Amino acid sequence: MAQGLKVLSAALPQDVKLETRSYDLGAQRWHATGDTLPDAELESLKDHDAILLGAIGDPSVPSGVLERGLLLKLRFAFDHYVNLRPSKLFPNTPTPLAGRPDIDFVVVREGTEGPYVGNGGSMRTGTPDEVATEVSLNTAHGVERVVRDAYERAKARPRKKLTLVHKNNVLVHAGHLWKNIFDRVGQEYPEVTTDYLHVDAATIFFVTQPERFDVIVTDNLFGDILTDLAAAVTGGIGLAASGNINPSGAFPSMFEPVHGSAPDIAGTGKADPTATVLSVALLLSHLGYGDEAARIETAVASDLAERDAAAPRTTDEIGDALAARVSG
Amino acid sequence: MAQGLKVLSAALPQDVKLETRSYDLGAQRWHATGDTLPDAELESLKDHDAILLGAIGDPSVPSGVLERGLLLKLRFAFDHYVNLRPSKLFPNTPTPLAGRPDIDFVVVREGTEGPYVGNGGSMRTGTPDEVATEVSLNTAHGVERVVRDAYERAKARPRKKLTLVHKNNVLVHAGHLWKNIFDRVGQEYPEVTTDYLHVDAATIFFVTQPERFDVIVTDNLFGDILTDLAAAVTGGIGLAASGNINPSGAFPSMFEPVHGSAPDIAGTGKADPTATVLSVALLLSHLGYGDEAARIETAVASDLAERDAAAPRTTDEIGDALAARVSG
Ligand SMILES: CC(C)[C@H](C(=O)O)[C@@H](O)C(=O)O
Ligand SMILES: CC(C)[C@H](C(=O)O)[C@@H](O)C(=O)O
Repeated sequence: MAQGLKVLSAALPQDVKLETRSYDLGAQRWHATGDTLPDAELESLKDHDAILLGAIGDPSVPSGVLERGLLLKLRFAFDHYVNLRPSKLFPNTPTPLAGRPDIDFVVVREGTEGPYVGNGGSMRTGTPDEVATEVSLNTAHGVERVVRDAYERAKARPRKKLTLVHKNNVLVHAGHLWKNIFDRVGQEYPEVTTDYLHVDAATIFFVTQPERFDVIVTDNLFGDILTDLAAAVTGGIGLAASGNINPSGAFPSMFEPVHGSAPDIAGTGKADPTATVLSVALLLSHLGYGDEAARIETAVASDLAERDAAAPRTTDEIGDALAARVSG
Repeated sequence: MAQGLKVLSAALPQDVKLETRSYDLGAQRWHATGDTLPDAELESLKDHDAILLGAIGDPSVPSGVLERGLLLKLRFAFDHYVNLRPSKLFPNTPTPLAGRPDIDFVVVREGTEGPYVGNGGSMRTGTPDEVATEVSLNTAHGVERVVRDAYERAKARPRKKLTLVHKNNVLVHAGHLWKNIFDRVGQEYPEVTTDYLHVDAATIFFVTQPERFDVIVTDNLFGDILTDLAAAVTGGIGLAASGNINPSGAFPSMFEPVHGSAPDIAGTGKADPTATVLSVALLLSHLGYGDEAARIETAVASDLAERDAAAPRTTDEIGDALAARVSG
């Protein structure tokens, strides 16, 4: 987080005064007080132009507590319906794929619906007769706004290609809602080439032919799965940035690395801040600082190109190097 | 299918009389009659020791019709709760992964619950106010039997390692049901080493460290996604076999290639029958013909080792070669 703010300051024009407020949220706070995200803090977060979220989570906190109580709470409370996750294979970065395909796509993951709505339950819990449910809720309103956003993004890119990923041969009701809206909205974007893939088939192409993708739009859960895979083939989640965006501006958008908090290396100076720095670029781009965002991306690309795996740098050194490139 | 039966005949001991009956199901039948799987045929299928299912599907049939009306209908009607999908990287087969990791794991995918139960719907369909749902149903009964099967398989393998894959930080109710049963049943298998991964993280390891997996047990939908990815990294779905198993024997188990029907190359003699032949091996193994199954696997491994990408053979030639190896 410190490196992200460092690069943010370095990137902003001189005449822009950056005001930040830091919120102590996450595993330590929960252990100390039992709080995940109290209402007063949620309320005060609304007064900001954007939120930069540090990686959260720790194995000492029961699974689901921080995810539902903090991360998903923010995404839902601030109606972050566009979960934006670009994937690009930078030069000189490791990829598990042979032949280093040319990867440069962005996943527009729906962020406020699907199986993430928390609409589930269990009865006879803990007995041999337990039944547990999870309900995926999907609305025309929710699907159309994210599909439209994805078409706009596809239209603005050179290749103008949009792929819908779902599983409409099994999840027929949600799947047909998505497919029908995707097809209907597509009529307004004749310049965009479209394609449909089942989620299982999409994972195949992520490893055999990732260069075929330009923009992908998909459901919350499929987007979760696909973007971790996308990160893995483009250098690892240490490089994957994301934006939780409310395009209407009614609430602040939130930017965060896709990776977790890596508590095993906390404080050792070994964490790579690049994903947080790239999240800062998404933040700047969202707030209208497109040139500044591009400068950060160029700085990251150059830094990665010159990295020497045999001479690892500390978190701070990487942050300093990126800040220097951005301001210089 | 013809090659699968050819190899099956070649593999069986001389004194075993093979009786087969062929059912005309799939896209052509649906176009001609509107039938997917009539009750009388479902009923008569019960009289068999096992079912070998040819790849089905055609883009001319609306998505979901054959999937729900034929494939899933069989899995549910015959209570195929163990959907068994081995993944092995044979020598000389192409993989998109650099460094050709040593891959040899099996996914035990639940086959009768989860989001596949067909419990969804939509209201105000086709209007701007549409709401569509998909309900994932999970029972202690359904989870425990497949988890137990997976422990048994892990126990029988040299590495004795079992990984549960779910998303219990978001799908908390279903996720906790799975995790609790996984932990409880695990106490009966002290020799099995266990591990838990969220589905998104699992996709990362499938491409960065697939050698870490031995047996994986997971939900129906996660298993669908993961096994296509697993097939992709081990030579493609042209090689991926699967068994839809009812371990109780109350209904016949069903064996099928993971791939689709590739209608674009139907009749050209270009289809690779290897996945169907490997499905025959799973079928034999399930019916107690372990040695015969092993002979087929060895034949496939040798055939793959000697394949020359520059000299492709026809479907029939590959079938003949495998049958010859198996009987010789
Ligand atoms: C931590 C978890 C709740 C979250 C998600 O599932 O959305 C994460 O995996 C992500 O992709 O941002
Ligand atoms: C065809 C489809 C219904 C099926 C599934 O989703 O189970 C297939 O993808 C599979 O993996 O066998």
